[in-house]
Amino acid sequence: MKITVMKFGGTSVADPEKIQRAAERAIAERRKGYGVVVVVSAPGEMTDELITLAERITPSPDDRELDQLITTGEQVGISLFAMACKARGADAVSLTGPQAGIVAKGGAARAQIDVIRTANIRRHLKAGRIVAVAGFQGAENGDVVTLGRGGSDLTAVALASALKTGRCEIFSDVKGVYTADPRIVHEARKLKTITFEEMLELAGAGAQVMMARSMEVAERFGVRIHVRSAFHPQGGTWVVAKEKSMLEKAFVSSLALDKSEVRLTVVGVPDQPGVAAKVLTALAAENVPVDMIIQSAPAQTGVNDISFMSPKSSALKAKKALESVARSLRAERVDLNEEVAKVSAVGTGFRRSPRIAATMFSALAAQKINIHMISASDLRVSCVVDLAQGENALKALHKAYGLAKGRRA
Amino acid sequence: MKITVMKFGGTSVADPEKIQRAAERAIAERRKGYGVVVVVSAPGEMTDELITLAERITPSPDDRELDQLITTGEQVGISLFAMACKARGADAVSLTGPQAGIVAKGGAARAQIDVIRTANIRRHLKAGRIVAVAGFQGAENGDVVTLGRGGSDLTAVALASALKTGRCEIFSDVKGVYTADPRIVHEARKLKTITFEEMLELAGAGAQVMMARSMEVAERFGVRIHVRSAFHPQGGTWVVAKEKSMLEKAFVSSLALDKSEVRLTVVGVPDQPGVAAKVLTALAAENVPVDMIIQSAPAQTGVNDISFMSPKSSALKAKKALESVARSLRAERVDLNEEVAKVSAVGTGFRRSPRIAATMFSALAAQKINIHMISASDLRVSCVVDLAQGENALKALHKAYGLAKGRRA
Repeated sequence: MKITVMKFGGTSVADPEKIQRAAERAIAERRKGYGVVVVVSAPGEMTDELITLAERITPSPDDRELDQLITTGEQVGISLFAMACKARGADAVSLTGPQAGIVAKGGAARAQIDVIRTANIRRHLKAGRIVAVAGFQGAENGDVVTLGRGGSDLTAVALASALKTGRCEIFSDVKGVYTADPRIVHEARKLKTITFEEMLELAGAGAQVMMARSMEVAERFGVRIHVRSAFHPQGGTWVVAKEKSMLEKAFVSSLALDKSEVRLTVVGVPDQPGVAAKVLTALAAENVPVDMIIQSAPAQTGVNDISFMSPKSSALKAKKALESVARSLRAERVDLNEEVAKVSAVGTGFRRSPRIAATMFSALAAQKINIHMISASDLRVSCVVDLAQGENALKALHKAYGLAKGRRA
Repeated sequence: MKITVMKFGGTSVADPEKIQRAAERAIAERRKGYGVVVVVSAPGEMTDELITLAERITPSPDDRELDQLITTGEQVGISLFAMACKARGADAVSLTGPQAGIVAKGGAARAQIDVIRTANIRRHLKAGRIVAVAGFQGAENGDVVTLGRGGSDLTAVALASALKTGRCEIFSDVKGVYTADPRIVHEARKLKTITFEEMLELAGAGAQVMMARSMEVAERFGVRIHVRSAFHPQGGTWVVAKEKSMLEKAFVSSLALDKSEVRLTVVGVPDQPGVAAKVLTALAAENVPVDMIIQSAPAQTGVNDISFMSPKSSALKAKKALESVARSLRAERVDLNEEVAKVSAVGTGFRRSPRIAATMFSALAAQKINIHMISASDLRVSCVVDLAQGENALKALHKAYGLAKGRRA
């Protein structure tokens, strides 16, 4: 029996009515003759509500107990999903991560999937049941632990790999991957395909389509991913390996706008070897994610500045860590700027084609949009601009790169 | 190390603030040198909210999936409880029923505890941890199932028995067992002790202090139960075995008023052997609880009536089953009366002392309260009266039996 792995995100199972619709899609796939494994997230805001409960108990809950708490969200999701299938006459069973044979390691809050023992899932599939598996969790030494990075997407990709399905259907409230956020850029176009590398860069650029870690695993184990809408029947975007024919080309696939980051700057750092390493080590110790590290060229004064972007949610933690480093380095001060946005173009072959970066800078200049920071790789160019100008920048770039017309479709 | 088993009901852990207070009581017990096992219920209305979610999926959810769903309520309770302990510097760990070694049998929704493998609990106790165990659940063949009767109280009593503690502290929103509901009868008095038999009769009479099944288990395994308030420090009521000195006495301990039942009557049943058995069998097949079965004396006509009381929640199911039996017995019709209340006196030695029943009937007559049905055993006398007169009946009986003065205290 061929097996389909489907994953429904929190917004796709936010209430009983949406769960019914998701169940109907799983049943339709089952009736086509596939064995169906469905990875289900916690409904709607349930995970956040549980975390809020925990924070009312203590500002820093114990990791093991927080996992014991928040894994109930996915357990609620799978049981409601299996009920909905059974109520429609399709046999189904829900399995928590531990029941599904998902063995994890690494400890509470930051576990990784070690191995998936698929015997129990296969037994239920053989009996003709739709198997609803709780995302984002596994068993470690009798405890239920959450998967630190990648969440439910990672569970789905890992199951597709363990069950050798070759593909994985990711259902969410977006219809696929677009050339830019269609809520901002109205002529944005849905892509039929995108490469793993581009998806990784989009995740780094702040487009919240899928978790980066799940993409890495999908690429490594050859699982094609289909990102599609839970609420519309039509196909979405396939995430695929790079074709050889694409290697020589240079083009922009998609744009991203990230308004969830702040800019941090350590001002007046002595120009000595090892300074940047000290700054980054301090941030790593506090688990602060960092993007676009820029060190200004040393001025005549013998001091320079180090700037980077970090998520708003880590800003205070980062500032505290930096202030301690700044003191020990005898730097002048630490600046925090919240009024910034990061606009990025993601694609391939950028290094061979400086035209792509040049197009970005001139398009922004034409709109009189000031660029605070620039960073570029072979797959991405990002500019930091004023927060108020972020959406204008996105629209201008979509036009400048001719993305509405679409060389790829 | 001596071990204390404490149980906190849903109202005692209804919100994070109440969980903090419950945790403080567990920590105080731990600091006295006891090993502490805490059975925790689902916070507040969480179980009902989860059932409502399920009913929005389907009116008759699958039992196995409903158990997978509602057991998350207790899991939320234990993890928040353990977090609260740890935040106060007391080491703690939460264990679901399966993690705690509670092995069940009998299937989803109606499982019973088969055995408790206490090794995991003892290991954590030995390490000095407060162990928070999810009530109302156990493991059966890799599934998590709910205990059909007795709920979290039963988990607590069974743990007290398995850990050989000899006693079990049941914390809830009531201060103990009273001579009557103090919200209705203001001079009602808290009892220092009550026997298991009396508690069982009180449960049957509709006083919702503790589940009957847990009392039976406590009596069988010699676990004394302390029913007390989660919100007040003073002691409550001890549920104990009957002392020999009490055997010869006859007295009323406590009154109960039950407004949650309806009266069902099969009217005009032919007076033949086996008729009552057929009626009761039909109700048992539908799992309808029944109290006070009364068959009127056969009249000259050769037909009579069978009446009994059942919970409102089962009324429609019961009526449907009875109507089918009524047709096959050629009975006249089935009557359903919702405007009734059951008032009961519970105590001991009633058969030796007809004065106790007589006092009830004359006290109700003095208040011009009409009695619809009567049933009496050695431990309980119950009368069914009009719903509107239930509270007056309770007040009159409390006075008539002189319960405010209290021969026992």
